[in-house]
Amino acid sequence: MRQSKLFTKTRREAPRDELAKNAQLLIRAGYVHKEMAGVYSYLPLGRRVIENIESIVKKEMDALGGQEIRMATLHPSEPWKQTGGWDAVDVLFKIDSRTEKEYALGQSEEEIVTPIAAEYVPSYKDLPIALYQIGQKYRDELRAKSGIMRGREFGMKDMYSFHTTQEDFEKFYEIVKQAYLRIYAQCGLTAKVTEASGGSFSQKISYEFMVLTDAGEDTILYCEDCDYCINSEVAETLTEGVACPNCTKRGVDSKLKRGIASEVGNVFDLGDRYPRSLGFTYKNEQGAEQYPVMGCYGLGTTRLMGVIVEALADDKGIVWPSAVAPFAVHLVNALPNDPEAVSYAENLYKLLSAKNIQTLYDDRDVRAGEKFADSDLLGIPQRVVIGKETFSENTLELVSRATGEITRLTQEALLQFLQ
Amino acid sequence: MRQSKLFTKTRREAPRDELAKNAQLLIRAGYVHKEMAGVYSYLPLGRRVIENIESIVKKEMDALGGQEIRMATLHPSEPWKQTGGWDAVDVLFKIDSRTEKEYALGQSEEEIVTPIAAEYVPSYKDLPIALYQIGQKYRDELRAKSGIMRGREFGMKDMYSFHTTQEDFEKFYEIVKQAYLRIYAQCGLTAKVTEASGGSFSQKISYEFMVLTDAGEDTILYCEDCDYCINSEVAETLTEGVACPNCTKRGVDSKLKRGIASEVGNVFDLGDRYPRSLGFTYKNEQGAEQYPVMGCYGLGTTRLMGVIVEALADDKGIVWPSAVAPFAVHLVNALPNDPEAVSYAENLYKLLSAKNIQTLYDDRDVRAGEKFADSDLLGIPQRVVIGKETFSENTLELVSRATGEITRLTQEALLQFLQ
Repeated sequence: MRQSKLFTKTRREAPRDELAKNAQLLIRAGYVHKEMAGVYSYLPLGRRVIENIESIVKKEMDALGGQEIRMATLHPSEPWKQTGGWDAVDVLFKIDSRTEKEYALGQSEEEIVTPIAAEYVPSYKDLPIALYQIGQKYRDELRAKSGIMRGREFGMKDMYSFHTTQEDFEKFYEIVKQAYLRIYAQCGLTAKVTEASGGSFSQKISYEFMVLTDAGEDTILYCEDCDYCINSEVAETLTEGVACPNCTKRGVDSKLKRGIASEVGNVFDLGDRYPRSLGFTYKNEQGAEQYPVMGCYGLGTTRLMGVIVEALADDKGIVWPSAVAPFAVHLVNALPNDPEAVSYAENLYKLLSAKNIQTLYDDRDVRAGEKFADSDLLGIPQRVVIGKETFSENTLELVSRATGEITRLTQEALLQFLQ
Repeated sequence: MRQSKLFTKTRREAPRDELAKNAQLLIRAGYVHKEMAGVYSYLPLGRRVIENIESIVKKEMDALGGQEIRMATLHPSEPWKQTGGWDAVDVLFKIDSRTEKEYALGQSEEEIVTPIAAEYVPSYKDLPIALYQIGQKYRDELRAKSGIMRGREFGMKDMYSFHTTQEDFEKFYEIVKQAYLRIYAQCGLTAKVTEASGGSFSQKISYEFMVLTDAGEDTILYCEDCDYCINSEVAETLTEGVACPNCTKRGVDSKLKRGIASEVGNVFDLGDRYPRSLGFTYKNEQGAEQYPVMGCYGLGTTRLMGVIVEALADDKGIVWPSAVAPFAVHLVNALPNDPEAVSYAENLYKLLSAKNIQTLYDDRDVRAGEKFADSDLLGIPQRVVIGKETFSENTLELVSRATGEITRLTQEALLQFLQ
């Protein structure tokens, strides 16, 4: 895409009331527009990033057998009243209508997915199943802070699975866990898995996926020698510096570290709570009616985008990992007033487009310094610069946004490298 | 996909309170699940259809230079109060929150897109621009009927354009009109364009895209010799049988016909109403502040899915045009108890998948009659049947869902035909 045609422009300043680094950078770079605290619109660049994240998530969920659906977000009140969520879930938005109906806005979809599953799962032969969707969620937060990391409206992948036994759920959880860890890795993040206390809608232990970042809202204790990790809220007697319980067992001497972390996913072991309150039974092998065991697997897509910014940005701007970047290459013509450079740049842009390399082409008539500052702010992984050396030495400058590493290479070598 | 793994199953009956043909068929075939009047969830097959429709729309909007964004659906009340929509739009859902904030749910997004455009369009040099999104909309309808054609929650593509002059808007409208007509054609529909009175939020003339179907809610007068078409609401002295005003002018003798039609898109000439009430000006060539001319282009994606069903279904079930069908081919093994047939079917399924031909493979152990009835109901364009002749004559049966035409051909010829 030509940057001159891109509808957004970078800004020097973020809104004054925006304290979170992720939203400051995303607003300044034109990825998002703040509508109010906790509610953002995603502009062309931001929409591209979110779609990339969704596509990574979708692939992993499809691969483990999840069937994608799209559930309503405007919910009837009845199932929420049946489960008790209508009164118990404090972040549930409730809507009065012109008719006598009351509605809720989806903040999670157990109340909708359970009756759907009930309709199509008459028998143990239909189990296990896993249904997922990617869409908007709504939470009536008292305070929305942390930019796009905690919103009143946000994007989320939520999956729900149903099983005949607890063992089958746990087996499936392990598969989902590996898929989640692959998703975070593709997003340039290393996640740790904790056991944490369930939220208001579960008494059971749940699993949280945590990324170390100062912008986090949780404190975790973790071991660097094994994958032991626990949320400090449920750590009881454990504190920083004590021996890792896991390593102690296997005779290794290792101490726990304390870290600030951000939750990027969670899994709830819901047992038969929702099937029971919403009347979902299936016939087991003996022909008797039985409640399935249910799991819920959340992954906030817009939140993940915020965490990536927090964890990877530097003092010059955003740093996108290549799998989620809005473009693979930022082609910058540093000599916009030189007709030879313009013609060279136009031709290179055509070559890159023909090879299907997603390119943002800075064809604007502004000075080079401004282009480089914008490029650093935008965070596209590879910058290709057309400058004086392109003509004196027949080379282009390739700059890695993450490392700052500069390589000089010919156009041929560049095209080969980017392919 | 293997039908035995598909989470949904067909049903003999739709819910009793469901009177619309589109929803009856879509529910019976397992495409959608009714949550309440006017609110549906889209199950795996339905999600595929909606994604195909979205993809057609997206391609056409991108091609005319639209920039895709994702706006918030949870709206602050302030811009709605500024434009007067807070009190004037009767279908606007309003939400009280735990904080003192009031919110609205997006039923159209002029109140959100205008401030966004204002921020990035300081100058006439930045115009024209067209921003669009594909997402959920909400309307507090008194009566939700017509199945997925008129919902309290529904999918929509909404685009907004901003121009320096009325002429520029009209030129752009003509481009959008052609794109819309191509979209409907790909969906197997022929749309007519009417001039209609604007709704509550516009005093100006708007354009409606209409498809003739008995399920429609509008009456139109149209000419079969030219593209003249008018909504009977604004037709004034015109009735069925009178001479077409257009044809009369060019000396052709043609009479207007009356038809029941369904609106599948609309365009509003909004003038400077929203820029004026939300304070969006740009600097014109003379450096003076000026309000842009604004257009709004709606296309209901879930509504379009409903209209396709209404317009094309027959007494056996749904008939999808190939561009929106959930699968291109329904591979039906009519001999599920014959090991030779099973092995033949498995192999053919592999061949089709390897060629990237989207195939639903009915591998279930049910009788052939049930499979064929399900196949008719599901409406996949091409059915390939493995039966006795596959072995005695070395041929497969290829059945067109739309025409019922049966062709017998070898596996080789089939693969060539489907490619």
